[in-house]
Amino acid sequence: MRKIHVIGIGAGDPDQLTLQAVKALRSTDVFFILDKGEVKADLTGLRRDMLDAHVPEGTYRVVEARDPERDRGAGGTAYSPAVGDWRSARADIYERLITGELGDEQTGAFLVWGDPSLYDSTLGILEEVLERGAVAFEYDVVPGISSVSSLVARHRTGLNRVARPVQITTGRRLAEGFPEGVDDVVVMLDAHQTFRQYAQEDVDIYWGAYIGTPDEILVSGPIAEAAPRIERLRAEARERKGWIMDTYLLRRHPRG
Amino acid sequence: MRKIHVIGIGAGDPDQLTLQAVKALRSTDVFFILDKGEVKADLTGLRRDMLDAHVPEGTYRVVEARDPERDRGAGGTAYSPAVGDWRSARADIYERLITGELGDEQTGAFLVWGDPSLYDSTLGILEEVLERGAVAFEYDVVPGISSVSSLVARHRTGLNRVARPVQITTGRRLAEGFPEGVDDVVVMLDAHQTFRQYAQEDVDIYWGAYIGTPDEILVSGPIAEAAPRIERLRAEARERKGWIMDTYLLRRHPRG
Ligand SMILES: C[S@@+](CC[C@H](N)C(=O)[O-])C[C@H]1O[C@@H](n2cnc3c(N)ncnc32)[C@H](O)[C@@H]1O
Ligand SMILES: C[S@@+](CC[C@H](N)C(=O)[O-])C[C@H]1O[C@@H](n2cnc3c(N)ncnc32)[C@H](O)[C@@H]1O
Repeated sequence: MRKIHVIGIGAGDPDQLTLQAVKALRSTDVFFILDKGEVKADLTGLRRDMLDAHVPEGTYRVVEARDPERDRGAGGTAYSPAVGDWRSARADIYERLITGELGDEQTGAFLVWGDPSLYDSTLGILEEVLERGAVAFEYDVVPGISSVSSLVARHRTGLNRVARPVQITTGRRLAEGFPEGVDDVVVMLDAHQTFRQYAQEDVDIYWGAYIGTPDEILVSGPIAEAAPRIERLRAEARERKGWIMDTYLLRRHPRG
Repeated sequence: MRKIHVIGIGAGDPDQLTLQAVKALRSTDVFFILDKGEVKADLTGLRRDMLDAHVPEGTYRVVEARDPERDRGAGGTAYSPAVGDWRSARADIYERLITGELGDEQTGAFLVWGDPSLYDSTLGILEEVLERGAVAFEYDVVPGISSVSSLVARHRTGLNRVARPVQITTGRRLAEGFPEGVDDVVVMLDAHQTFRQYAQEDVDIYWGAYIGTPDEILVSGPIAEAAPRIERLRAEARERKGWIMDTYLLRRHPRG
């Protein structure tokens, strides 16, 4: 039976690998690295560095494929999507990788950024491949340090306040309004600095970009003061590196 | 200057330690282990095993203190609380530990269960000690794998569904109603199996107890079917071990 590890590799700092992840890396024959376009050089590089650092040379193979999500007409690799629907295009690619590159008794691995449980499609796609029934495999999930945990660790603050809830959401959702019933909200996948919408409110922001990497930038404070600084730093960094990954916690002060 | 590491050690599986956590362990002179009453033997034991496994003998000291939170009249240790208020009782203890047990140029560490950002008071207490001004120190936070990440990894599911939010809350809050604006809710610190309140709704539950330990129990499925099973297994396990730690994800099916 083929085996697959879905391995959370942390969100930037290679030392965020867990011992369990290192063991899983070492028991892997074939690594599937999905290339995400622009951020390719940096993030694919980090994955390769992790393998170099932790897995004896000659014990594994790396297969790179183009992730269809970002493949906006960039064109031909061996594993480019066959159909229009991204989810099923991805399932096509994963299926072909597993069938074509993994021997019957071998173990493959997908190295997932941060924690595989947060805004990542790998698990859903593997389930889809299994449902199709063309190839059988077992899989397990190795949890990783998410960018959310990293963010608050670097700011030395908690996610929730005592006995209170916390919500994790997307920039798009936040644009529809501050979530109901919570005062602590972590925002991911925000391309539009939606926090600016709350700059006049009694909210603290804890923001981080490229967290855990040498380019890390952290800003925190009352949002009215912090927002303009974040905007400036974010624009500069994005210009310099060509891409940005940022996450933030909004902490609203209880009213009254 | 004194230094303190607040180290997330994962939620049960010793292999959930990150490489960064191992480095922090190795750079520590004095470990402060706060004993939590009933679960003492097991959880304090796990911490000691981690030290044995990863830190050379003779390079560190362990100081155990009784955590006042659970100290319901159990009585006298060297560091028992002086005042009624738990938070400030804890700050008293931490202050005395740092002042009395840590040399001026030494590094201390608190080993925090799971991730220090989730329902843990260590960071808040250290801030309180700093504010009092009686002792100065630097501190940093090493993120850990939380029981939340472990739970969903073991169930091989995501925390959020595609582009949707997730909330992390407590049993007490859930008892007040299903949180607004989210369909995916992780519940911690629930002594009353509050999920039973939703047993008639169109909800899936992913439940886990002692996750990551040899006693791990996992149950998932439609809540109407799973709830009675969980109740039974939970009661048996609690009886057998004398204590239980469980967490669950409720996934509500969108209406209509
Ligand atoms: C597709 S999601 C994947 C999240 C990942 N599974 C995790 O656990 O962090 C990508 C989003 O994660 C956040 N992110 C990931 N790595 C980050 C980092 N090093 N610094 C800041 N934000 C990061 C950003 O909000 C980004 O838009
Ligand atoms: C005081 S909170 C601390 C949480 C911890 N900081 C973390 O990141 O998991 C304790 C709660 O965490 C959950 N928990 C911690 N470890 C667990 C485990 N191994 N299995 C199941 N639940 C666990 C339970 O809900 C428990 O009531």
